[in-house]
Amino acid sequence: MSADVPARVVLRDVGPRDGLQNEPPVPTAAKVELIEALGGTGLTEIEAVSYVHPRAIPQMADAAEVWATVAPRPEVRYSALVPNLVGARRALEAGFTDIEVVVSASRTHNLRNINRTPEESLAAIAEVIDLAHADGARCQVIVATAFGCPYEGEIPEDQVVGYAVRAVRAGADSICFGDTTGMGSPPRVRRLVGGFRDREPDHELALHLHDTRGTGMANLVAGLELGVERFDASVGGLGGCPYAPGASGNIATEEAVYLLHELGVETGVDLDHLLEVAATAERLVGRELPSRLLKAGPRTRLSPL
Amino acid sequence: MSADVPARVVLRDVGPRDGLQNEPPVPTAAKVELIEALGGTGLTEIEAVSYVHPRAIPQMADAAEVWATVAPRPEVRYSALVPNLVGARRALEAGFTDIEVVVSASRTHNLRNINRTPEESLAAIAEVIDLAHADGARCQVIVATAFGCPYEGEIPEDQVVGYAVRAVRAGADSICFGDTTGMGSPPRVRRLVGGFRDREPDHELALHLHDTRGTGMANLVAGLELGVERFDASVGGLGGCPYAPGASGNIATEEAVYLLHELGVETGVDLDHLLEVAATAERLVGRELPSRLLKAGPRTRLSPL
Repeated sequence: MSADVPARVVLRDVGPRDGLQNEPPVPTAAKVELIEALGGTGLTEIEAVSYVHPRAIPQMADAAEVWATVAPRPEVRYSALVPNLVGARRALEAGFTDIEVVVSASRTHNLRNINRTPEESLAAIAEVIDLAHADGARCQVIVATAFGCPYEGEIPEDQVVGYAVRAVRAGADSICFGDTTGMGSPPRVRRLVGGFRDREPDHELALHLHDTRGTGMANLVAGLELGVERFDASVGGLGGCPYAPGASGNIATEEAVYLLHELGVETGVDLDHLLEVAATAERLVGRELPSRLLKAGPRTRLSPL
Repeated sequence: MSADVPARVVLRDVGPRDGLQNEPPVPTAAKVELIEALGGTGLTEIEAVSYVHPRAIPQMADAAEVWATVAPRPEVRYSALVPNLVGARRALEAGFTDIEVVVSASRTHNLRNINRTPEESLAAIAEVIDLAHADGARCQVIVATAFGCPYEGEIPEDQVVGYAVRAVRAGADSICFGDTTGMGSPPRVRRLVGGFRDREPDHELALHLHDTRGTGMANLVAGLELGVERFDASVGGLGGCPYAPGASGNIATEEAVYLLHELGVETGVDLDHLLEVAATAERLVGRELPSRLLKAGPRTRLSPL
């Protein structure tokens, strides 16, 4: 292993938001149950909801109700994804102290998603960041399609890094490179993380990895070996790829925890407990989730003789 | 990437044998179809059948008929797994020039599987190797449970390496460390490959990796960075883990090819063609296979605007 491998990483579980957003709708109570269960596993960051328009994403229409019902834990940082100033106001008024906004590095993807160019999105994001800061909250900018676009294909790394740096200049507290449709590979991780570090060596950086093509864990190791300390993952591998029906989405949190612990990297997460929550997530959405570890159990779970 | 990463690796598809052995039985014609289809993808090694007793593994009862029906390609090396001298004679008489034998590094696992200690297995293996060599054939020794045992748990690396070195002394042309139940992780790959290379720096070495716990691709990269040039994989991720019902088994060949190509490592395999064969494999066994890439397609397959 590289000498840069951190001794400890922070995993943010995005299952309640990014995961459930790509599943058939579940009841409000199920979302609350999932968020509260995840908070008991040792995870210190949970992406809880998004304040998006219910016409755009009906799965998140009850965000306010979910968040009003959850009993938050003091040791967990909960975040909300917001699409714009209106959503940001709602999130901040609901008490969130961590919000996330998205800009796609692919012009085509950004235009199709929100009918804005990435430049127009970045201008709006600057206002969201100012609003968050005025409220004493933190704002992370997620650069989506950072590893490739389902429409355009390759997105040059300097274009991706360029948008990330502009977000930093606009005040983003954290940058997250999102592998929206699972097009990442270890060399792309190295070029992207390296390119950003060259420009912003000390800025907080996270990776949001998907396992749509089986490269998720190899990408995680590549990021880790570059010293990346923050990764998104989704309990059970909850969620899917919106561009490939039936395909996997986020890396599974328990698989990330298992691999990190095998690598000697601390996460603070109780793996057995998290596996129970993954089983709960599977029950809540009523379908078999893609996590392999959920089926097999950790290597310490031996067969009876 | 480490400077040791080879420019090209050999993938052996073990789907027709190791894969189908862990699926409900399929007709002889389906096995022939799969073997012949794999031979057209650019793969140069295929584990075709095993000559085991039909009471032990009914899925392979028609091995002789399968192999008599397949039209072999001159550019492909086909191998057969054999459990003992009787099986080895059958394989060699059928014309195989590559055979494989197995010894488990776990005493408990070996005793439960074939009622022999690993030492007794190694003595028998020496006779199989001699028989193969007398026939001008090659013999690979697969050291199973090399990364851990479903009954014993940890198997000390020096014990695993010790059996591998004894197999080399007995004339094994190639050693393959088998992650029988998917307990491998990158540090274990490094300790095992490093330990073997310390004793046998120039001997042919292969890794047989499973993805039962989501670590398969990270383990592949770890092996690659140590210069390992031979990996087993199974088209579609065909097969499962016999110790965890419903769990994944072998790494999927197309996911290995995809990742290797992304890493700039040649395989000689036509990925699109292999994905077609993976779809065929899925049809032949009549269940959804675990390969993620099979569902999503390669990153070059873009969405329509």
